[in-house]
Amino acid sequence: MDSSLLAESKRIAGYRAADLVEDGTVIGLGTGSTVFFAMERLAERIASGLSIVGVPTSYQAAIRAREYGIPLTTLDEFPQLALAIDGADQVDPGLSLIKGRGAAHLREKCVADAAEEVVIVVDSTKTVDTLSAPVPIEVLPFACGLAFRRLTEMGGVPVLREGVKKDGPVVTDNGNFIIDCNFGAIPDPASLEQQIAAVPGLLECGLFTTFAEKMRVVVGEGRECRIVSLH
Amino acid sequence: MDSSLLAESKRIAGYRAADLVEDGTVIGLGTGSTVFFAMERLAERIASGLSIVGVPTSYQAAIRAREYGIPLTTLDEFPQLALAIDGADQVDPGLSLIKGRGAAHLREKCVADAAEEVVIVVDSTKTVDTLSAPVPIEVLPFACGLAFRRLTEMGGVPVLREGVKKDGPVVTDNGNFIIDCNFGAIPDPASLEQQIAAVPGLLECGLFTTFAEKMRVVVGEGRECRIVSLH
Repeated sequence: MDSSLLAESKRIAGYRAADLVEDGTVIGLGTGSTVFFAMERLAERIASGLSIVGVPTSYQAAIRAREYGIPLTTLDEFPQLALAIDGADQVDPGLSLIKGRGAAHLREKCVADAAEEVVIVVDSTKTVDTLSAPVPIEVLPFACGLAFRRLTEMGGVPVLREGVKKDGPVVTDNGNFIIDCNFGAIPDPASLEQQIAAVPGLLECGLFTTFAEKMRVVVGEGRECRIVSLH
Repeated sequence: MDSSLLAESKRIAGYRAADLVEDGTVIGLGTGSTVFFAMERLAERIASGLSIVGVPTSYQAAIRAREYGIPLTTLDEFPQLALAIDGADQVDPGLSLIKGRGAAHLREKCVADAAEEVVIVVDSTKTVDTLSAPVPIEVLPFACGLAFRRLTEMGGVPVLREGVKKDGPVVTDNGNFIIDCNFGAIPDPASLEQQIAAVPGLLECGLFTTFAEKMRVVVGEGRECRIVSLH
């Protein structure tokens, strides 16, 4: 897909996701380019009278939401959300995801957990038969060496994510590091997510496998989009 | 047990644990009063020629170790440790532990995971038939409200730990909050540890259930101590 068609796919999907938001609700606002298209459409709907409040999943989401005039609140005020809109790096047919290219997946997973419904917005290049992208993992800096040891023992190839416009490791909004761990093809992502969760110092991985039942995936392809769910 | 006998119990046990340390090894240094007795004895042994290096589990452990002249290194330099010495708040007969009264259990669990052998030092008041103390849980501040919701759904009674000599919540060495969650008696601590690990935003709980096979527990009682292991 050429880049203008790719952007159009994201825009179509983002707008469709925004149109799923109901008046008077509190929603999660994910991080990344497709979500910004959803915010753009939400801003239009707010101008036409839609009343919503958003919980941002990152500093970036908060900054963009403010630019779009979307009122914000916190997960502490609303630990239960009607819906969360977010992107993904890969989606498999069972609606397991890999997320975290933007290093925001820890807060994104909290927000997805808090939401009654999760709407994932992707372009069609993100749908795959089997997840295989490197898995982003937020790691306690104290435990970085141990994390490398444990992930290697699990068959992964871990790489510490380094910054651009910042020397040394990327530091997340929560003050931690990111390891991108290549496991090759991931036939059983739920099992891998549990294995990673059991290692101390690995604070959260970008595998999202527990939200499929409450998920709709809006897939943009060129000037069309389709909605995928397990129901 | 009166307080001087209690202190003597801790001292005896701490000294015994320190005597298990072999020359030329890298060891984990836990946090809390019994570990300080172990450090005291390690300092004596270093003065007599023992050569060791310690990985501290907290700022407090590092400060004390420096006072005792114990040379320090990091878990990044040595992601594999010969042995870790640490305390516990409760120990059950299967050698599952509750830790975290000092808010250091996240790093302590990393160090225990990295160690070939874990030596836990307690006085006999810490041994119980069934774990039942409130479980300390290190929580991402962003997810505190969600954590309360999820822990309540799990049957717990969560309380945010507040500071003394600091207004508001205790902030850990890692910049997070602590929730003390009362689950009453905990007949299956391994299952509860896994349940808590699966909730995003709950970064690490004070249940230690996966180290029993490599653990020795030194239990001080008055002027005596005994060593408990599963072998």
